[in-house]
Amino acid sequence: MKKSIDTIKMLGVEAINKANSGHPGIVLGAAPMAYTLFTRHLVVNPQVDKWTNRDWFVLAAGHGSVLLYSLLHLSGFDLNIDDLRNFRQVVSITPGHPESHLTPGVDVTTGPLGQGIATAVGLALAETQLAAKYNTKKYPIYNHYTYVICGDGDLQEGVTQEAISLAGHWKLNKLIVLFDSNDVQLDNMVNVAQSENIGNRFKAANWNYLFVKDGNDVEEIDQAIIKAKKSDKPTLIEVKTIIGYGATKQGTPAVHGAPLGADIDTIRKMLKWNYKPFEVPNEVYDDFDVNVKQRGINKHDKWLKMYQGFCKENPALGKELDDAVYGNFNFNPQDLRDLKPIKAQATRISSGAILDRLSNMIPSLIGGSADLSGSTKAKGADGVYSVENRKGRNLAYGVREFAMAAINNGICLHRGLTPFASGFFVFADYMKPAIRLSSLMEIPVIYVLSHDSIAVGGDGPTHQPIEQLAMLRSQPNLNVFRPADFNETLGAYHTALQTKHTPSVILITRQDLPELEHSNVEMVKKGAYQVYGEDNNNDVVLLATGSEVSMAIAVAQKLEHDKKIKVKVVSMPCWELLEQQDAEYKTKLLEPNALIASIELGTTFGWERYTSNKGLNFGINTFGQSGPFQDVLEYFGFNVENIVNAIVNFKYQIIKS
Amino acid sequence: MKKSIDTIKMLGVEAINKANSGHPGIVLGAAPMAYTLFTRHLVVNPQVDKWTNRDWFVLAAGHGSVLLYSLLHLSGFDLNIDDLRNFRQVVSITPGHPESHLTPGVDVTTGPLGQGIATAVGLALAETQLAAKYNTKKYPIYNHYTYVICGDGDLQEGVTQEAISLAGHWKLNKLIVLFDSNDVQLDNMVNVAQSENIGNRFKAANWNYLFVKDGNDVEEIDQAIIKAKKSDKPTLIEVKTIIGYGATKQGTPAVHGAPLGADIDTIRKMLKWNYKPFEVPNEVYDDFDVNVKQRGINKHDKWLKMYQGFCKENPALGKELDDAVYGNFNFNPQDLRDLKPIKAQATRISSGAILDRLSNMIPSLIGGSADLSGSTKAKGADGVYSVENRKGRNLAYGVREFAMAAINNGICLHRGLTPFASGFFVFADYMKPAIRLSSLMEIPVIYVLSHDSIAVGGDGPTHQPIEQLAMLRSQPNLNVFRPADFNETLGAYHTALQTKHTPSVILITRQDLPELEHSNVEMVKKGAYQVYGEDNNNDVVLLATGSEVSMAIAVAQKLEHDKKIKVKVVSMPCWELLEQQDAEYKTKLLEPNALIASIELGTTFGWERYTSNKGLNFGINTFGQSGPFQDVLEYFGFNVENIVNAIVNFKYQIIKS
Repeated sequence: MKKSIDTIKMLGVEAINKANSGHPGIVLGAAPMAYTLFTRHLVVNPQVDKWTNRDWFVLAAGHGSVLLYSLLHLSGFDLNIDDLRNFRQVVSITPGHPESHLTPGVDVTTGPLGQGIATAVGLALAETQLAAKYNTKKYPIYNHYTYVICGDGDLQEGVTQEAISLAGHWKLNKLIVLFDSNDVQLDNMVNVAQSENIGNRFKAANWNYLFVKDGNDVEEIDQAIIKAKKSDKPTLIEVKTIIGYGATKQGTPAVHGAPLGADIDTIRKMLKWNYKPFEVPNEVYDDFDVNVKQRGINKHDKWLKMYQGFCKENPALGKELDDAVYGNFNFNPQDLRDLKPIKAQATRISSGAILDRLSNMIPSLIGGSADLSGSTKAKGADGVYSVENRKGRNLAYGVREFAMAAINNGICLHRGLTPFASGFFVFADYMKPAIRLSSLMEIPVIYVLSHDSIAVGGDGPTHQPIEQLAMLRSQPNLNVFRPADFNETLGAYHTALQTKHTPSVILITRQDLPELEHSNVEMVKKGAYQVYGEDNNNDVVLLATGSEVSMAIAVAQKLEHDKKIKVKVVSMPCWELLEQQDAEYKTKLLEPNALIASIELGTTFGWERYTSNKGLNFGINTFGQSGPFQDVLEYFGFNVENIVNAIVNFKYQIIKS
Repeated sequence: MKKSIDTIKMLGVEAINKANSGHPGIVLGAAPMAYTLFTRHLVVNPQVDKWTNRDWFVLAAGHGSVLLYSLLHLSGFDLNIDDLRNFRQVVSITPGHPESHLTPGVDVTTGPLGQGIATAVGLALAETQLAAKYNTKKYPIYNHYTYVICGDGDLQEGVTQEAISLAGHWKLNKLIVLFDSNDVQLDNMVNVAQSENIGNRFKAANWNYLFVKDGNDVEEIDQAIIKAKKSDKPTLIEVKTIIGYGATKQGTPAVHGAPLGADIDTIRKMLKWNYKPFEVPNEVYDDFDVNVKQRGINKHDKWLKMYQGFCKENPALGKELDDAVYGNFNFNPQDLRDLKPIKAQATRISSGAILDRLSNMIPSLIGGSADLSGSTKAKGADGVYSVENRKGRNLAYGVREFAMAAINNGICLHRGLTPFASGFFVFADYMKPAIRLSSLMEIPVIYVLSHDSIAVGGDGPTHQPIEQLAMLRSQPNLNVFRPADFNETLGAYHTALQTKHTPSVILITRQDLPELEHSNVEMVKKGAYQVYGEDNNNDVVLLATGSEVSMAIAVAQKLEHDKKIKVKVVSMPCWELLEQQDAEYKTKLLEPNALIASIELGTTFGWERYTSNKGLNFGINTFGQSGPFQDVLEYFGFNVENIVNAIVNFKYQIIKS
């Protein structure tokens, strides 16, 4: 046992030394608790690392990545000793912070503090819902724990605070958080920035709180985990540890994030460690083989038999679950055409109707909002999720936007559920760090964000998005949809649900929009397509999205009628998908020789990609105004006449020059 | 008293009805507590609303704006009855959510939930530091309270949770939060999304917790505030209220955010209110005149005498304080030239040296980081701020990025202190909602964000900013500086400290950068300027920022030497300031007839504004890689040779076509 723990430590600090980069403090301090968890509790099968009913493990303190990599290697995951040697090297599977889409056995991408715990709350929630939906007395196919190791920094983050409030409220008793309580942060001792009573704080949020006084004592840690598993509440186990235990600078911030260098010999001496760097004693492999790998394989074998029994006895449910886990949503958008409104309707209303119907068609669809369902119209089915109603698919997040997004990441990672999160578009700001992780983890969560422009009206500039469009469009691996009417809204949902490795944002309006004559559900997949005018040889091409597409058509009609200018209008519901089209499609659509102008009720930042830098981008680059939305638009002079005049003037300037 | 409270209510619901938009629930529920606070405690002078030693009031629940506007009107602030009639109308001073830069008597812009309390923590902190620095036994010139009215939603937000942890730690006992506890949220009753014990939660964070069982009982509220003022801790007063008290749908979510319409008559009847809409009984004006206005004027008069006495007896301190309050930082950058390094140095090191020197020169400079000072090198002077060291100008925020930014907003709003906040650039994501409020409130806070590109290296994609450049540049009223070396870093600080109504972000590197031959402290103010090549008739103009300027010069030299192509290099430390230059400056600098290319180690999103849409933007549009930074750059092929080749190929294409 000692030798196994020592191996974890030595692999970690050797890898850090070799990379000359990394965080030895947590490796030396938290190795005993990680060892205890892996060898005595965590149920995983290293050969089938995506087994959905495994115990999930989140290293919230992601800077301790090499601790996790060492454990994964010893446990028999597909991560060999050379991968450890390549710690923090380009294209290795052992990057500086764990990345779930990259490395077998890494369940969640962590590093941005606080989000690990919130994401674990999502994993634990998913387990309760899937258990409620699919477990039978004979076949309890969902029955796993979610474990977390976190540090002080995680607990200081607001997103964690939001998430623990929900975890306590939801009584997610199979969530067990081991808190590596070492009293040290990067800049100072923890007590310089904090004097909160952690135990009382968690108890106030309806958590079970346990204390382990010696973080080197495997038995004490083990007993605490055993106790936690019996709790009817989520549990925080505060484990007192010494950061960088054994190093000369143990117990100080100096050992947090700098390689040990020559001081590694101090550790070697203390541990009486006589092996070569990256050498693992056979008895240590044996320990992990028996206590993690074989134990896990046995459990998985039993589970597989149970699962097969379940599928045999409940073929319909088995199929349903399979579709949910693999994300097979082959619905036909035609089946929702009857929802098409006969008169002008806000896309938030269209979105709500579509979501309601989809909730009927797709049993795995789950979601809700940060206390704004009444406004966004995005609401899950089957009642509010709660202790009493584990099958409820409407998630009442309260005003906790960031936790909502991070929890949804966890739900999505778990597989078996298809989460959406909704709120006002301007509050995408609050969710941004979690949206980034959705993209980085390559998971297809859906964000439904309404009130998508200054047309919000009376709520004023604090509630009117401007720059959020550029904020999201500039993020890698994110599809940002801004549909123009019902058809495009349906197209956005259809595309989002068919997308496997990219999250989607669907931006919808508060105000009514007319149904366009030539809007097209299927063409949303192309990212942009023609909705008005002739195919080619146009004088002007107008690019618009969402609520401004109908305006662009009005502009086009006026230009044609009053000025005999030939105009095409392109609806561009998703830039990112347009970028994926071939050059021929783009050139034909965008007509590089025409005068190209964009019309969008938000920042013009970024539009020059399509319009060049001639300045013909109609948008709003300042904060908004509080007022009835028509007045707000008039205040900014954002109307058909002004746009027509600007284009005409510009065209004549060009002709003159 | 009853009539005064009824007036507040009626003005509020009438204004909401007239606007046909707004939130009557809080007006009817919280009017008694707001009345009690204003008439019995809050010390303000409506004639000198920017008096820095007034009691500050933050309506964290900003959707209750009309409650605040009614109180300000009755108290004699420059907000007349027509302003109330214009509630939620374009260019009114009574927008949907309170805006501090717009409306006399509005201390903080609120609406985005959670930030109000965090900002109030900053106000309360500022009071303690200014008191410690300037108060004498004879002249206690800083001695005010900071009051907040918040709702359930505020308390659910993570940023509030972060902020209360700090407020308790810092024992900000003159911070008093009235919690409008009405058990109702927009979507549901509060208990659907929350079951936390609020009292215990605040006690765990070292707060004083008081409970008022009847929110209509002015005496009970009054007694609680009296008690709170005597506490040695910050106080939360939970006041039980009935949302929409008196309306047919009182006590339900339906009354939260929709105008009462005809139901206003139910209120009129209950209150026996026989006045016309917007009519205020004279005795109510009298009540406020005596109990708010005259009381405040008297207190202000006394204070003014005290302040004059203070300035007379302590002229140096008086001058120092005056400079601090009015932001007079007329330092000469020449005085910092000795800090210029003789060899390559990371701009985070330059920034740290500059900040340290500035801390000596500017006594009001205060700041710190979210537990990353060791990495960002941004640290305030005079030790860590604490109960024992109220003069400490180093703020140890712990890992609480969002609260840091929101608290700094409060410190800045207070005036008298000049706050900076630091962290890793990628975690600007966590601060984004507060950065937006800095811009909207038009306050000159400074953000010092290091590790500003994938050159972070080993920490990998979770810690490597990509899209953050576009996120911030697209935000209105924000100057984003990315200095290329020491000179430009100094120029950025100099410009930021001379800017009165715009926040600044200064982006600095982890890796060493060479000092440029032609970098210029003063030219940073222009936003962009030439650092290499001939003034005009260039074949190619290279635009670059920060760490890529020296690379651009290397590219230019190679193009000239190998290909005889004439190249100019423009360093663009601040796009926003370039946009403010006249057309002549821009045209001369950017040479529209040349081939223009951008080089920047982040998203290319937005660069087409300067380079047109021909695709010659060298940057990184995917997530990064973990590895030594040179390897990461090579992985992306981001090197001089590849850029040279791409430009040459592109140029020949053009020549051929």
